Parts: sequence; structure tokens; C-alpha cells
Amino acid sequence: MLNREFSAAIQQRIDQKTKPLGALGQLEALAHQLALIQSQNLNAFTNSIVINKPTVVVFAGDHGIADEGVSIAPSAVTQQMVLNFLAGGAAINCFCRANNVELKVVDTGILLPVEGQYQDLVVQRLGNRTHNFAEQAAMLEETVVEGIKLGNKLVTEIISQGCNVVMFGEMGIGNTSSASAILAALTNQNIDDSVGLGTGITQEQRLKKVELVSKGVKRCQSQEPIKVLSELGGYEIVQMVGGFLAACEQKTPVLVDGFIVSVAALAAVMIEPQCREYMIFAHQSKEAPHQSVLKALDAEPLLDLSLRLGEGTGAVLAMPLLRAAAEFYNNMASFEDAGVTV
Amino acid sequence: MLNREFSAAIQQRIDQKTKPLGALGQLEALAHQLALIQSQNLNAFTNSIVINKPTVVVFAGDHGIADEGVSIAPSAVTQQMVLNFLAGGAAINCFCRANNVELKVVDTGILLPVEGQYQDLVVQRLGNRTHNFAEQAAMLEETVVEGIKLGNKLVTEIISQGCNVVMFGEMGIGNTSSASAILAALTNQNIDDSVGLGTGITQEQRLKKVELVSKGVKRCQSQEPIKVLSELGGYEIVQMVGGFLAACEQKTPVLVDGFIVSVAALAAVMIEPQCREYMIFAHQSKEAPHQSVLKALDAEPLLDLSLRLGEGTGAVLAMPLLRAAAEFYNNMASFEDAGVTV
Repeated sequence: MLNREFSAAIQQRIDQKTKPLGALGQLEALAHQLALIQSQNLNAFTNSIVINKPTVVVFAGDHGIADEGVSIAPSAVTQQMVLNFLAGGAAINCFCRANNVELKVVDTGILLPVEGQYQDLVVQRLGNRTHNFAEQAAMLEETVVEGIKLGNKLVTEIISQGCNVVMFGEMGIGNTSSASAILAALTNQNIDDSVGLGTGITQEQRLKKVELVSKGVKRCQSQEPIKVLSELGGYEIVQMVGGFLAACEQKTPVLVDGFIVSVAALAAVMIEPQCREYMIFAHQSKEAPHQSVLKALDAEPLLDLSLRLGEGTGAVLAMPLLRAAAEFYNNMASFEDAGVTV
Repeated sequence: MLNREFSAAIQQRIDQKTKPLGALGQLEALAHQLALIQSQNLNAFTNSIVINKPTVVVFAGDHGIADEGVSIAPSAVTQQMVLNFLAGGAAINCFCRANNVELKVVDTGILLPVEGQYQDLVVQRLGNRTHNFAEQAAMLEETVVEGIKLGNKLVTEIISQGCNVVMFGEMGIGNTSSASAILAALTNQNIDDSVGLGTGITQEQRLKKVELVSKGVKRCQSQEPIKVLSELGGYEIVQMVGGFLAACEQKTPVLVDGFIVSVAALAAVMIEPQCREYMIFAHQSKEAPHQSVLKALDAEPLLDLSLRLGEGTGAVLAMPLLRAAAEFYNNMASFEDAGVTV
């Protein structure tokens, strides 16, 4: 676990700033977590949080379950949205531009691969798309292990190039179904509480989604993460799990987006509990079961804007709060500096 | 009221973006409001929200009630914090630097005026500090009217220099007591529900604060804003009321900070209901009675970070969300642009 030896000095620095004790609320906890991680890396107390090349990695993958009509859109839209990301036209691109965040897009196995070369595209496909998890295992356990390795390697590389805050996003028609099934299997919670409206399906479609998720979870009969991911997972989800493990190994904070990314985070924490220390939860999604994932991770998110888009949008929107936390930790005057006599 | 003739075209533009309908939650309402205001100014539908020179104006004033021990700090701290703002050392300075926001500090009547000249300081003092509102009217009604004029003139000038989003902040030892009293008088709500813990007083001090606020409100016997402000107000609060009226006259959006600024916003809306259309509520403060002010204004704030600092910090922290809303409204691809077949 994170070494707490610098925790007291960090808290003292925060408490001496010119403000009532605790008056910056969640930003104080955020500054504390960032300073603690960076102190650990330096093996010394740091009075300066550095944020360098924050990068969002958007993992895209397709899902066999999509053929069952659990989404408002067909699998072909995953490719169209990947092209939209690469052309700079999606919401995630807008928020990256507004908040000065770099973007990588990963094809982890989308139905229709993108042709041509793109600087921001990484291709590491585990297949064309997963099998329909309502009928059979989504992928082999070997594929899960391979996907975790690939995600890990990519995120390690991004960090080695100077990025010290990572964010993950996802795109994949059908992936709320997969995430719901993984959540129900990992936590053993009620299926009905694990399934939301995704992109905006009807209540009738949702009942069908509950039924399909139930079939998969019933077949899975396990809470062991690798097994659960092979039965119910998605290629983008397993690669994100690898990304979380990399962030932990590299002692790098990771801003967690919405429902699907949080489910990947939960799987990563079940594989390696130390992962949790590096996670910052960006937002409470409008997707109802996100609340139970956050609860399972004992997480208090920074934002609650009724977002339900994915792509990493919530994570990138929270990025300015990290910069604000760093700036006050680094440069706000202490009572002594400012001659304030409280 | 705001002319709604461009509302349908604005909503259509938002709905054609490459995302499920409504998937950007509160950011969609925010983009709509900004586009509607700017369309009105142009007298034409705009497909481009422009954000220029966003500026936070921090109004500082002192309060006679402070002698009663309703705060953790004495009135002298108001001056010390003003000097901290001018030296760039306070939380508000950090957040302005992090989020590229300009700052003006206004001495509306602090106990110990600042000596010397500062580029960011505006001096328009209504007195040394208000009278103790538990014992007598805080100021004359003429002073309220004069303060509203001065605040209005200053904000009008800032807007005329190219700023098109304003934010207000405040500093003044004792000003949660004044804001609580104004809230109770304007809304006729229970005094106990109007009083919070301010900078972090004890429950025992809070009971004394309730008693003092009750004395003032009982004497006031009115819901008429000018009368209420003269009986219970603060110099910084009345100048902020003028600022809100200016934002409305200049058709300029204003990001509303926490408890005290929201009480000034409520007074402004009671004077001129059209003010409400230009207000964007930045955050839910930790100060308990802020909730009832927001309810009275039918406001849904953007952030909820347990802040209780004032200074305009919540408003400046919300500024990146306005830039993100503008960027998606202006530059996110439509389904047609991107060839997405949903």
C-alpha cells in the first residue's frame, strides 16, 4: 500500500494555507492524494505537485451481445465513432482541447477496423468482436490475459513518455451490458440493480437486457476476475484492466471515468488491491448502476453532471480540478507567509 | 425576459451532435443558456459561444456584527486577506491562475483600508464597516442605493472592457451572519434553517449567531429588498446586488459562487426578476442554508465539492465547464458531419 510516512507533513502544509481548516473540501483530499503519490515516487515529502502531459486513452471494442438489440445503435457505429475521435469531432476531442489533455485511441477489437494510419491510433486487436455472452463465454481466458498485458504495456509506455496523470475512456456498442454483467458477477449483487438504460433504451429493452445479463451471469458462476472477464467481458474492458495495473505499477494517478471504466477499475482492484490508491473518481454517471460500483470501491466522485456518454468525457472534465488542487497546494500562501493572524 | 425565439434552433444544434440525446447532462443546459444569451445579444441564432476575458470581482467589506464573536476571526483579518488577494497568495488567486480568469478586488468598506496603489484594487468605500445589525440598522437606505449604483457602474465598466462572463466573490468577517439574516428576512423562512457554521464556529457559537440574527430580522419586519439590505446587509453584499443588476442590463452571464453571493443574487432577482436569466450557479456550498437560497432561486448548481471558503472560489472552479460547454457547442461534429448512422 502507499507509504503514509509523508501524510502528516502534507496535511500540515494544507492546514497552514490561508483558509479555514477543511474549507476547500474535496480539493484538499485530492491535493493530499496527489502529493502522497508524488512524495512516494520521490521518496521525500514534496511541496510541489507536478502535472505533466495528462493523457486520456480511449479503448474501443465491439460486443457480440449487441446483436440482441441492447443498444440504440448497431456495432458499425463503434467504427464510425472511432473515426470521429480520430477526426477530432467527438465530445472527448472537444473536452481534450478545452482542458489541454492529450488523446490516444485504441482499437482493442472493433467489428470494422479502421483503414489507414493515424498518429493517435493504436491497434492491438484481440479479435473482431467478442462472442455473445448470453450464449457463450465472450472470450478465452488466454485472451483476457493477453488483453491485460497489451493494456498494461501501452499505458506503461505512455507514462514512460512523460505523462504523469492518465485517464481511460471507452467506446463500444453493447458495452454497458457487458459492464453490468461483470458488476453483478464480481459483487454478487442483484442483476436488476446492475443494469441501466445505457445510451437511452426503453424500459422494455431494459427488461430484455436484464434477462440477457442474467443468462451470462448464471453461466459464469464465479467471482474470480479473470474468469468473469472471459465469460462476460469486452476487449476494451480487459485492456483497461491492464491499464489500471500499469498505473499502479508506475505509481501514477489515474482519473476514473463513468460506469464501464469503473467496472474495469473494480476488476483491477480485485486482482491487485493496491490499484485503488492511485484512482481518483471523476464523476457520478447518470447510468444508475454506477452508484453501486462507486460504493464497492468506496469512492466519492468529484463531479455529478448527469453525464452518460462515456469516451472518458467525465474524466477529462475533472482534469481542471486536479490542476486547481495542485496550484493551491504549491502556491497558496500560508498564514505565516501572508501575515494573517487567525 | 430572455427572448426564446432562438431556443429551438439552439436545442436542435445540441441534439444533432454525435452523442445520445441528453448524454452531456447539465453541460447541455449550460450550452443552451450561454447560446441563448449570446444569440439575444446578436439578435440572431449563433452557432458559436464566445468566452472572453472572464473576470471574478471580489467584493470585500466589514461588519459590525463581527464584534459579537460570530466568526473564528476578527475584522482585522478582512484587510489581511485583501492584501493576500493583491499579493496573489489566496485560494482565489490560485484558481484564477489555474483557470485563466482575471481578478479585481473591491474595497467596499473594510475596517482597515489598504494603503498604497494596486492595479487590481478598486476602492469604493461606503464606510468603515456596517453597524451591528443585531442592535440597529446596518446602514442607511441611501447607502444601499449608493452601493448598488457603485457595484453596477464597476461591473458595467468591466463588461465594457471586453469581459463577457463575470463572477462575483466576497470577503468579510461576519458576512455569513449578514447573509443569513437577509435570507431569513427576504424569504420569511425559519431563522434556525438560515444559519450555518460559517468559517467553522462551534455549535454553541452558532446558537448565539441564531439569536443575533433573530434580533435583526425581528427589527427589520419587511421583505422589501432595499429595506432588508439596509437593516441587515453588508457593503460588499449591496455592491454585489448592483453587479447582478449590471450583468442583466448588459445581457452578460454571471457565474454565482456560494452562500453569500447567492443571497445577493436572490436580493437582485427580487429587485429585477430578469436577473435570474443570466445567472449560472457554480456550486453547492457546504454552508447549510445555501441549499434554501438555491431552492428559492430554482437553481441547480454545477459543482458540489464541499467548499466553504467564499472569495469566488467555487465560481472560478466552475469556469472550465463553461469553456467545455462552449467547445462542444461550437466544434463537436453532428451525425451528418461525422457520417454516424444513429
